[in-house]
Amino acid sequence: MDDFAADPSHPRYASLLMRHRLEVAAERGMLAASAMIAHGRGEAFDYLLGERSTTSALAAARQALAVLQAAERPVLSVNGNVAALACDEMLQLANVLQCPLEVNIFYRTPERMEAILSYMKERNDALGLEVNVLGDSPNATIPGLKGPRAACHREGILESDAILVPLEDGDRCKALVAMGKNVVVIDLNPLSRSAQQASITIVDELSRALNNMLEFSTSGEPVEVDETYDHRSILQAGLAEMLSSLK
Amino acid sequence: MDDFAADPSHPRYASLLMRHRLEVAAERGMLAASAMIAHGRGEAFDYLLGERSTTSALAAARQALAVLQAAERPVLSVNGNVAALACDEMLQLANVLQCPLEVNIFYRTPERMEAILSYMKERNDALGLEVNVLGDSPNATIPGLKGPRAACHREGILESDAILVPLEDGDRCKALVAMGKNVVVIDLNPLSRSAQQASITIVDELSRALNNMLEFSTSGEPVEVDETYDHRSILQAGLAEMLSSLK
Repeated sequence: MDDFAADPSHPRYASLLMRHRLEVAAERGMLAASAMIAHGRGEAFDYLLGERSTTSALAAARQALAVLQAAERPVLSVNGNVAALACDEMLQLANVLQCPLEVNIFYRTPERMEAILSYMKERNDALGLEVNVLGDSPNATIPGLKGPRAACHREGILESDAILVPLEDGDRCKALVAMGKNVVVIDLNPLSRSAQQASITIVDELSRALNNMLEFSTSGEPVEVDETYDHRSILQAGLAEMLSSLK
Repeated sequence: MDDFAADPSHPRYASLLMRHRLEVAAERGMLAASAMIAHGRGEAFDYLLGERSTTSALAAARQALAVLQAAERPVLSVNGNVAALACDEMLQLANVLQCPLEVNIFYRTPERMEAILSYMKERNDALGLEVNVLGDSPNATIPGLKGPRAACHREGILESDAILVPLEDGDRCKALVAMGKNVVVIDLNPLSRSAQQASITIVDELSRALNNMLEFSTSGEPVEVDETYDHRSILQAGLAEMLSSLK
């Protein structure tokens, strides 16, 4: 996937690889103007996390997988940064869950939608998968949102009962929760509105979180919904791990 | 300066204004590819600071002004992000200090140098100032650095005894300290290599820090070098203020 020449033993390899992926995506027209700034904010929080999956992040990833597996109509939502940073992992997870994936972006333009959709289709074919990639002909709207950012597919986001929305905007996250869905967010800032409002928040870097979910799904061990899972205490634990790294 | 239409009473006005300035600078070719990501990292730390100048940041800004005023040959260094975010404030500070300002960028290309220099000259004229803006014909090198990033002016950075280098790279900051200069850094991450290595570090958002220095310089109150100033304890205090906001 990546024509990235850096040495994998470089201590900043993973971080440099993600930047490289963003640059490639920017050249393809997949990103909004704010994409790089948003990524930089994430980098700062990941730096505080020690650039590793914490115990609480692993617990959240396991619960997220369990909830998506137990759902009747799960769906994975993909925006520009998600497509740039972890297109393959999102496709692989949709394949594991046998669910559709919907491209759904905040600053919607036909050009960006087309750039992201064609990239997803390219990777779907390259991986030999047959994931149903939605987004090109929205036929419904998310209640409570205005304008193009409300557009979605009835057979995708609208009728889903559980949704993974990594790197999501706070208003959209809130609107999805208000629809009664189980909303799983992946966000490095445990204090963000999305992180606070979601049903389950994985405080981790996107590709690490997705790879953890993929590993849980293929480990052979059963992954079951933990009825005692406490969203607030998992968020608190993530924050506490950042605090201890600052001390 | 800014053709920026947002309402100044908007709670995110200052942050949105800075993003707008970066977008304008990007269009003018002043920024490297990494500029937006670096800005986003800063935003995350500023969020933790509560987007305000802390007591320790004010103490550092006061000491920085005193040290630059007491220097025989102060100089202000400007890179792409600094020119984008606080061009006017840097020119005004150079005017107060009656010192030169040198454009000095990490990823040096003739096009970016020209874009930044012409913007600085435009603003110098618009403000009615006659600040000596260096950078267009470097005739010396910073010892310990390789390639184009070592280039500087003899009458500017090379022979200065005190230098303000906001948003500076760690290697360059280290090389300037090794030359025996008083190095003042403005950096929102108190744990960054630049913040750690500098003589004085102002942990604050760039334009806030510069406006504080400008206010101190025009307050009428004398601003004197504090011989007991402790770089480490000021950095610790900045970190402690971030920690308390996270709790």
